[in-house]
Amino acid sequence: MRHDPLPCADRVGRLHSGFPETDALLILSEKNIRYLTGFTGGDGALMAGPDWLKLLVDGRYVTQARAEARGVEVFEFRNRVDGIAAVVRERAIGEIGFESPAFTVEEYFKLQERLPEATLRPLPKDFEFLRAVKDESEIDRIREAARIAGEALAAVREMIRPGVREKEIALELEYRMRRDGAEQVSFETIVAAGANSALPHATPGRRAIADGDCVLIDYGAVCDGYHSDETCTFIVGRASERQREVYRLVLEAHDRAIRAIRAGVSCAEIDRIARLCLVEAGLGVLFSHGAGHGVGLDVHEAPRLAAGREEILRAGMVVTVEPGVYLPGVWGIRIEDTVLVTEEGCEILTRTSKDLTMI
Amino acid sequence: MRHDPLPCADRVGRLHSGFPETDALLILSEKNIRYLTGFTGGDGALMAGPDWLKLLVDGRYVTQARAEARGVEVFEFRNRVDGIAAVVRERAIGEIGFESPAFTVEEYFKLQERLPEATLRPLPKDFEFLRAVKDESEIDRIREAARIAGEALAAVREMIRPGVREKEIALELEYRMRRDGAEQVSFETIVAAGANSALPHATPGRRAIADGDCVLIDYGAVCDGYHSDETCTFIVGRASERQREVYRLVLEAHDRAIRAIRAGVSCAEIDRIARLCLVEAGLGVLFSHGAGHGVGLDVHEAPRLAAGREEILRAGMVVTVEPGVYLPGVWGIRIEDTVLVTEEGCEILTRTSKDLTMI
Repeated sequence: MRHDPLPCADRVGRLHSGFPETDALLILSEKNIRYLTGFTGGDGALMAGPDWLKLLVDGRYVTQARAEARGVEVFEFRNRVDGIAAVVRERAIGEIGFESPAFTVEEYFKLQERLPEATLRPLPKDFEFLRAVKDESEIDRIREAARIAGEALAAVREMIRPGVREKEIALELEYRMRRDGAEQVSFETIVAAGANSALPHATPGRRAIADGDCVLIDYGAVCDGYHSDETCTFIVGRASERQREVYRLVLEAHDRAIRAIRAGVSCAEIDRIARLCLVEAGLGVLFSHGAGHGVGLDVHEAPRLAAGREEILRAGMVVTVEPGVYLPGVWGIRIEDTVLVTEEGCEILTRTSKDLTMI
Repeated sequence: MRHDPLPCADRVGRLHSGFPETDALLILSEKNIRYLTGFTGGDGALMAGPDWLKLLVDGRYVTQARAEARGVEVFEFRNRVDGIAAVVRERAIGEIGFESPAFTVEEYFKLQERLPEATLRPLPKDFEFLRAVKDESEIDRIREAARIAGEALAAVREMIRPGVREKEIALELEYRMRRDGAEQVSFETIVAAGANSALPHATPGRRAIADGDCVLIDYGAVCDGYHSDETCTFIVGRASERQREVYRLVLEAHDRAIRAIRAGVSCAEIDRIARLCLVEAGLGVLFSHGAGHGVGLDVHEAPRLAAGREEILRAGMVVTVEPGVYLPGVWGIRIEDTVLVTEEGCEILTRTSKDLTMI
């Protein structure tokens, strides 16, 4: 049977070159399978030998897999573990490297039981390195997601006023993103007012906005699988001196980090630059998370911008920059953009101005 | 330190009685942790000894865990595997049974490396049996979710007319459920028109409804963690003879299954009854999935109503009944209600009439 040329041949090539010593690879996470084949369905497995590629799916997904993963042989299973075992036997594979963060212990033991002769080897590192550098088509989709998200936020901004509940704003924002072209929202939108804005992972609730509140909105859209991620913090009414000062410092941390980003700099260095700015002002301890993370098919993926992460930024990586200061029980301010790393610097993909905005 | 009485003591008791031979248990799935402690956050672990219970969470969740899991000792970790290892050593546990479907191979190997002396034993069956029988408060929440969902569908029903796109209806339906009290939607709403209705797992797209279409809507709301699940198939314009006939048969399969449901009957028997009705009409091969599944903190949970599932229905179980017939490339009809199993029969919790509706 003749197959079309593989649409993601370069990606599959990079996969193999990451694990040159392994005969066959078993990829299990939905996002990696999508990246390598184009298949957007779930519950599948991808097996890759030196010169073959097999996408294993259950009956619900056969038609879709054939249409989306052109050039890849599709194998139908009733049970995923049995399907993998059948291919291992058919190809007489002695040793198979598998994606251990995406395989449950339950399935692993079942597979081992069915393949007493084969060696199942958890791969020494995760597969995220595969997807960290984006190509033009991926960047375009992130850009489009950021555009849809930014326009939706602009449209609901007039809702941010005293008396309106966090949940109401989150719902309208998500509705608009989806109505205007987002296939999904990137994650459950955070709209956190007043003391809730001091919780980095707040869930929007029934709290009504009050005059003087910080209103922190962390949101994003998904476009053809690719995510955007952005945080704006607005001040309702007139900002206090303290709010202005902290806003200025967080923005300074954000700007300095963005000015430092370019191919060749380490992730830890960007985190250090953002953090230093807040540490110097005595606010270091209130910046309780990393400075950013990669964004793509997952909203959180490689690389991580955090202390100790010595990975080097490369042109084509897309990362967030998101310093924040949280005063427990009082309020918090976070400022986040998603940027594309280039040889000379970076390009900001998110669209909303980060100047202090009182509304 | 004095603890409040454990709010879920009976549930924890049932957990232990399911695994009487194991000294300590490690529970890893979010839904089971929520069920056993009340904690609604993520990325945690629950460890249970004969007379102690420890909820392990990372720094983001400590405050929330203390507030939600009253009476349970909260242990903060920086890394989940390290946290589990620390508790095992502190308690001098020799053997620990763990929830293997909720543990990745990556974490498992790391834990084993940190605990060379301990025996990690995957538990012989999954934990779903724990949650299959619902108590009054759980049933109330499913009932409320079904009410919110049903009212939202009634409100958007006028949108189901020629020219309107599948996606537009799905978006409005989800928006209304959330606006009117659903904390989330149960799953990505299916609105599938015409040939798309023949795909049991269709994703709503840009297809516009046409006269004569079957429009299959599979949807649900989440209320305080608990899901509803319901499918209605409408006919736009005048139903053809074939559509009427298939609708009548699917409804008959649905009604017969519902009439057969009561405590003491096996899951397989309900599937057999629904299937027989379609097999007799020569449509058996077009009913390509099981007759139903449990619904609760997960939208798909124990028990499964399918061939070979010999589990016995018990009063308090909540299950869907969802026969369907799919004519590939033409149209499909599925009719689904969520019902509460009682001693004498069952109570239908979903609210939309399943009579043939032409609109």
